[in-house]
Amino acid sequence: MASSGSRVVDIHAHMYPPAYVGLLESRQTIPLIRRFAGAKDPRYIILPAEAESLEKINQAGATATTTQLPGRPVTTHYSSLQQKIHFMDTHKIDISVISLANPWLDFVAEAEAAETARSVNREFESMCLEHPGRLFFFATLPLSAPAEELLAAIDFVRGLKHCRGVILGTSGLGQGLDDLRLIPVFKALAKNGLMIFLHPHYGLPSEVWGPRATEEYGHVLPLALGFPLETTIAVARMYLAGVFDEVPDLKMLLAHSGGTLPFLAGRIESCIVHDGHLVREGKVGPKRRTVWQVLKEQIYLDAVIYSEVGLKAAIDASGVDRLMFGTDHPFFPPLTSDEQGEWESMTWNKAAVEKALGEGSQGTLAVMGGNAIGVLQLKEDA
Amino acid sequence: MASSGSRVVDIHAHMYPPAYVGLLESRQTIPLIRRFAGAKDPRYIILPAEAESLEKINQAGATATTTQLPGRPVTTHYSSLQQKIHFMDTHKIDISVISLANPWLDFVAEAEAAETARSVNREFESMCLEHPGRLFFFATLPLSAPAEELLAAIDFVRGLKHCRGVILGTSGLGQGLDDLRLIPVFKALAKNGLMIFLHPHYGLPSEVWGPRATEEYGHVLPLALGFPLETTIAVARMYLAGVFDEVPDLKMLLAHSGGTLPFLAGRIESCIVHDGHLVREGKVGPKRRTVWQVLKEQIYLDAVIYSEVGLKAAIDASGVDRLMFGTDHPFFPPLTSDEQGEWESMTWNKAAVEKALGEGSQGTLAVMGGNAIGVLQLKEDA
Repeated sequence: MASSGSRVVDIHAHMYPPAYVGLLESRQTIPLIRRFAGAKDPRYIILPAEAESLEKINQAGATATTTQLPGRPVTTHYSSLQQKIHFMDTHKIDISVISLANPWLDFVAEAEAAETARSVNREFESMCLEHPGRLFFFATLPLSAPAEELLAAIDFVRGLKHCRGVILGTSGLGQGLDDLRLIPVFKALAKNGLMIFLHPHYGLPSEVWGPRATEEYGHVLPLALGFPLETTIAVARMYLAGVFDEVPDLKMLLAHSGGTLPFLAGRIESCIVHDGHLVREGKVGPKRRTVWQVLKEQIYLDAVIYSEVGLKAAIDASGVDRLMFGTDHPFFPPLTSDEQGEWESMTWNKAAVEKALGEGSQGTLAVMGGNAIGVLQLKEDA
Repeated sequence: MASSGSRVVDIHAHMYPPAYVGLLESRQTIPLIRRFAGAKDPRYIILPAEAESLEKINQAGATATTTQLPGRPVTTHYSSLQQKIHFMDTHKIDISVISLANPWLDFVAEAEAAETARSVNREFESMCLEHPGRLFFFATLPLSAPAEELLAAIDFVRGLKHCRGVILGTSGLGQGLDDLRLIPVFKALAKNGLMIFLHPHYGLPSEVWGPRATEEYGHVLPLALGFPLETTIAVARMYLAGVFDEVPDLKMLLAHSGGTLPFLAGRIESCIVHDGHLVREGKVGPKRRTVWQVLKEQIYLDAVIYSEVGLKAAIDASGVDRLMFGTDHPFFPPLTSDEQGEWESMTWNKAAVEKALGEGSQGTLAVMGGNAIGVLQLKEDA
């Protein structure tokens, strides 16, 4: 294993443990996993447009040989721990901080949420125990559970040895993350030193992609634009609602280098100081912490942005000590080369870091692993 | 006037000429301009949420002294040419390339569109003639007119001495800019050397801002996030539809430094090469021009991004020779200082250029004016 100074950490690495796959297989509405006759892998169906395709296939009795199947293949990369370790070894990743992938437990009924979360989180802790020093995790919260069970879940996961935070979508309790009913949750996380990994799932309403999108542009628009905007909107709403001031110890890691926050922070600031309503309400006073300050004080960004241009903006916005390398594995598998070989999600993102900061430089070492090890205390005996 | 090498050009500068204001004053649905008893300035009402407020005020018979008025004040900055020149003089802007502001003529009935556009474009040409060498303009197209009238309008504006292109929203003929019925329009523009200035207006569906936005966050979210995303979606759809390949001479200036395109181009590229549908359709072959190439070959960006971080990403993405300074005047007036004095839209954007490229450097001179003068041939006798 590489020496501490040059260790590589994947901060954005998902897993669908077998029990969660079983849960998705049992569902009739999205998100769901479905097997089709003649298809090697089951399909994971999450988008409304994919559900429409599924409906048509069900009516026509079509098979994998007669039609294009909706969604994406659930390969062993989704749920096999052995495959995760193989991916890490192939790409010289020393440590992965794994997390359940979207949409987490957002869809689970109130009465079952707490127990399902507990079981998923135990499963993640077990996976980490199988590979000491190589795996840590972001836990999953039962957001649909009653308030006291939600707080109890935080208490439970902080006791799990390899848990370093929680992964959170943008829906919160159903009304977004600027919902003040979440303040006790944020305070409990901050108090226990648990970082929030904010991750998108819902994107934007499908009409914004236009009439040609579904048939012609694949998943490009919702994934490339909808996801980052969802993250940006969520964190901007938290900022405007005063959540960061209310919970100043809250630490938040934003997926995909903040969505678009580094690029748009200047425009957000301009729109705030030029907003008649906010000025009249006294919300633009001299004591206001700007978006730029919050970026440097409470926000961390992953380096999953696939370009030097974006990565440099992310570094400029939050500081080289707050960026953390990630791959988004098992998503975006190679389509024209062996899935067991190199993935562009690794090579593009790593190249971006090295181009922006210099190969082997202190900055590169920090972003590739040092920051995550330090900030999240990724040591087996910690 | 400053020497040619250090002249300052405002490429993003709107005007509402008196005839257009009259048109908006005559309307009962948004967009509209309304006068209220007791209010110094009329109000310009464009957003659905503002229309709801207006409806309530109409029902209650409220006045400016009893309630907060919806929309934004239509000051003399909107329609007075004298005020525009004063703004330019105050901020040492040598040349402005003025354009009608959103939503242009998107709402005009089919039968009236061509004549309204002709009258607006004549009015812009007259304004330019009043101040030789200081004003040029982007014309307005009658998009709701029949196809032949729309093409005739392009023929008309190319004959106006100060016209350098057209300002375009994202709705096109009602189905977006990836509508293949627009190809003849794009080809006519390209053939005549008329640049498209792509500008947002419609933003995103209001539900994405959440239940607290309208009452509590002013216009921040739709303006700071909705507008840039609208631009990004529009240009990504054009790219995916192959418009840039179909019309390789088309030149397009993107408002607000491309919305979010420089930051997200890497993610768009990753989503394209990892999209099963696009790969199967043969759309990801070796001959494909990437988003990065189109950015450097057909796209120009304004420098209206209010931060060094964003501006550097814009420069990195499209090149320092393709960035053009702008202010977005008359929008974002100062709220806590004299409207006749300095505007942050000028000082922030200029400071961003100087911080990114160095005060007085060749790059700064190019972005502040040289690029626009060269690309758009902003010479009175050209």
